[in-house]
Amino acid sequence: MTPLGRVVVVGAGFGGLSVARELAKDLAHVQIIDRRNHHLFQPLLYQVATAGLEPSDIAYAVRGITKRLQSVDFTFAEVTGADLDAKVLHTRTRGTVPYDTLVLAAGARTATFGVPGVEEHAFGLKSLDDALDFREHLLGQFESCAVDPGLVARGALNVVVVGGGPTGVEMAGATAELYARVMRHDFPELDVSAAEVTLVEMAPHLLAPFHEKLQANAAEELRLRGVQVRLDTSVAEITAEGVVLEGGDLLPAATCVWAAGVEAVPLGDVLGLKTDRAGRITVNPDLTVPGHPDVFAIGDIASVEGPDGRPLPQLAPVALQQGEYVAKRLADRAAGRQTGSFTYTDKGSMATIGRRSAIAQLPGGIRFTGSLAWLSWLVLHIYFLVGFRNRISVMLNWAWNYLTWDRAARVIVGQVDPLDRLDVPEDGP
Amino acid sequence: MTPLGRVVVVGAGFGGLSVARELAKDLAHVQIIDRRNHHLFQPLLYQVATAGLEPSDIAYAVRGITKRLQSVDFTFAEVTGADLDAKVLHTRTRGTVPYDTLVLAAGARTATFGVPGVEEHAFGLKSLDDALDFREHLLGQFESCAVDPGLVARGALNVVVVGGGPTGVEMAGATAELYARVMRHDFPELDVSAAEVTLVEMAPHLLAPFHEKLQANAAEELRLRGVQVRLDTSVAEITAEGVVLEGGDLLPAATCVWAAGVEAVPLGDVLGLKTDRAGRITVNPDLTVPGHPDVFAIGDIASVEGPDGRPLPQLAPVALQQGEYVAKRLADRAAGRQTGSFTYTDKGSMATIGRRSAIAQLPGGIRFTGSLAWLSWLVLHIYFLVGFRNRISVMLNWAWNYLTWDRAARVIVGQVDPLDRLDVPEDGP
Repeated sequence: MTPLGRVVVVGAGFGGLSVARELAKDLAHVQIIDRRNHHLFQPLLYQVATAGLEPSDIAYAVRGITKRLQSVDFTFAEVTGADLDAKVLHTRTRGTVPYDTLVLAAGARTATFGVPGVEEHAFGLKSLDDALDFREHLLGQFESCAVDPGLVARGALNVVVVGGGPTGVEMAGATAELYARVMRHDFPELDVSAAEVTLVEMAPHLLAPFHEKLQANAAEELRLRGVQVRLDTSVAEITAEGVVLEGGDLLPAATCVWAAGVEAVPLGDVLGLKTDRAGRITVNPDLTVPGHPDVFAIGDIASVEGPDGRPLPQLAPVALQQGEYVAKRLADRAAGRQTGSFTYTDKGSMATIGRRSAIAQLPGGIRFTGSLAWLSWLVLHIYFLVGFRNRISVMLNWAWNYLTWDRAARVIVGQVDPLDRLDVPEDGP
Repeated sequence: MTPLGRVVVVGAGFGGLSVARELAKDLAHVQIIDRRNHHLFQPLLYQVATAGLEPSDIAYAVRGITKRLQSVDFTFAEVTGADLDAKVLHTRTRGTVPYDTLVLAAGARTATFGVPGVEEHAFGLKSLDDALDFREHLLGQFESCAVDPGLVARGALNVVVVGGGPTGVEMAGATAELYARVMRHDFPELDVSAAEVTLVEMAPHLLAPFHEKLQANAAEELRLRGVQVRLDTSVAEITAEGVVLEGGDLLPAATCVWAAGVEAVPLGDVLGLKTDRAGRITVNPDLTVPGHPDVFAIGDIASVEGPDGRPLPQLAPVALQQGEYVAKRLADRAAGRQTGSFTYTDKGSMATIGRRSAIAQLPGGIRFTGSLAWLSWLVLHIYFLVGFRNRISVMLNWAWNYLTWDRAARVIVGQVDPLDRLDVPEDGP
């Protein structure tokens, strides 16, 4: 038993789990707190939204992880405040939780940037219920159009994805493939090809951190799949009718996905810590919070300067490496050893557009696209999934989807009566 | 094209799909109407409830079936009435639907038998949202007890299953295994073994249609798994505190499953047809509705006399055989051939209690139990699942569950904030 005392980790994402797993090797006592009971593999959330995967393929009960780590336990609660001097957290449902070391790894949420109508009329893509809401809404739109095919021309099947980062690109590409390969056959009575899938991006290019050749490849691949790519285009408002652009043009669409950006969950503000413009907690080079040597912040919730002077991107590899760093630093501290500052090793970035299409760039200027990039993307995502069963299940579903073009999860579960989702009068057209 | 005109089938269950598939072979025009967008394999619904399977494993989008049958299409709507003389159905969301031949195959729903509190305080087990509601409620109960372990002694983890038919037996057995093999490890801080899973049955034996030796075997196997089996026990009321028995005793339980019986969906009454005590439509020996030679009723919604003078049981094989019979009769009628009355061929019955435990009886007095019955049950259920992908996925999940005792789907998706499900005060214990 190392003399670390009680380590409390807020958040069971990539960062939080990485700290807990490393510390568990030394049998340090770790308590993970999360307001969900599962770890979520967010990079594949868009595939749940587009009916290719099911929730349990990409979510993993945290207790399923902690029960295998002797010294780690899980608390299902939400942090509502803290007294950092007295070293206690305040939580909803679990009262006060004392700690000796605190690791804040609570992640990010959708940022609306103050654009009107986003919360009311757009789908986010950060949680399982976001993805399921989108899926059931979209399937409901097709059923509405089956009632009244005239709705198609009025935009009932149109989808506008706002934001040309990896999530927006993946979502637009997957939706276009779902339309062209699945929904068109499910609804032969509808002119599905008249439905528009549009990707709107404010900047003059997609996928900001990638090389311009890759950006151009992604845009071209999306267009080949029938996605309207609108660059240099800002959104003024989302309404029930669609997306209003700066300048006043309306893109009619019954479905809008807001993938324009994320901000840290507001835990930094709740705890009274210094945060940046995106709500991220400013940290020291050793990832501690200024003035609180026993409090760390890692992952999407932390603002850490990269070698180029800009904050590190909010990506899983950053959170993973930071988690490992914090665990090492705590072990070093307990053993009286020194630890250097955190440095991020960029191992490259990838984004996928669709079947046999992806882009990848590695350090040293290595770039590739197409089938090779896509296969690399598949392998990496299987590798990073938590749990052997989830890996097998996702591989099975991908193989099935690839071979048959099918999407098995296009089932309207209907927590409410699914017919109530159809926006047609009670007595039909 | 056969001269059958337009065949409208209400219900995409075993019976309805069986009619449509057979008629499609002759390219008869069939329109399937259902108020769900999926065919549901109800026999495995209890495994979705107990976190072993996911919805898309046992549900299959009806359009995924109809798109492969050239002359069959699907309408997502609810039948609200009919003018059987004018040969039109009235529907919610789709207006009037004309037919030349009508097949009513709308199935059954949970019957409360007028017991107070069933609708408010008990979970049914007839639809995907029933199963998901139960699953998320049960996982939430464990999280509540993690907050306040004293809740266990007050019945927060107790489950009472009312009804000793196949559904009740399977549900009680699966819940007991979930507790003993999964939840106990997920919640080492709780005394899960103190939680009671109780099966309540009014009759002096479980599983009425089975031989008494098999009934005794099932009760014994349930008891071995820790289920309290209470025979000769009637339920007076379900309350928020638990199940009140005739005589006034209370079985304290935060979770109650009502598997005491089903009744036909009230379509017979809606259409003004003659129904029996359980709401089932009385039909002629050729499955037509008296006075309406162009209207058939099959499956759980029809009351058909068996060779013993009692109505045939509400089981998938009955619906399947009746669907095939109606399709043949229609083809014969179109060809000017005679068809005899419907006769049901009993191919045997099975029920499963848990891992390596099931009971089976075949015609001719052949009976078996244990691993052999269980393996037969597995094979048969895989065989009757719709879709190759679902079969593979269920087999994979079963193999995983068998080898690891794991249940992957114990994820609280939380269409509402999952923390709101915890019945503890805002500030914790």
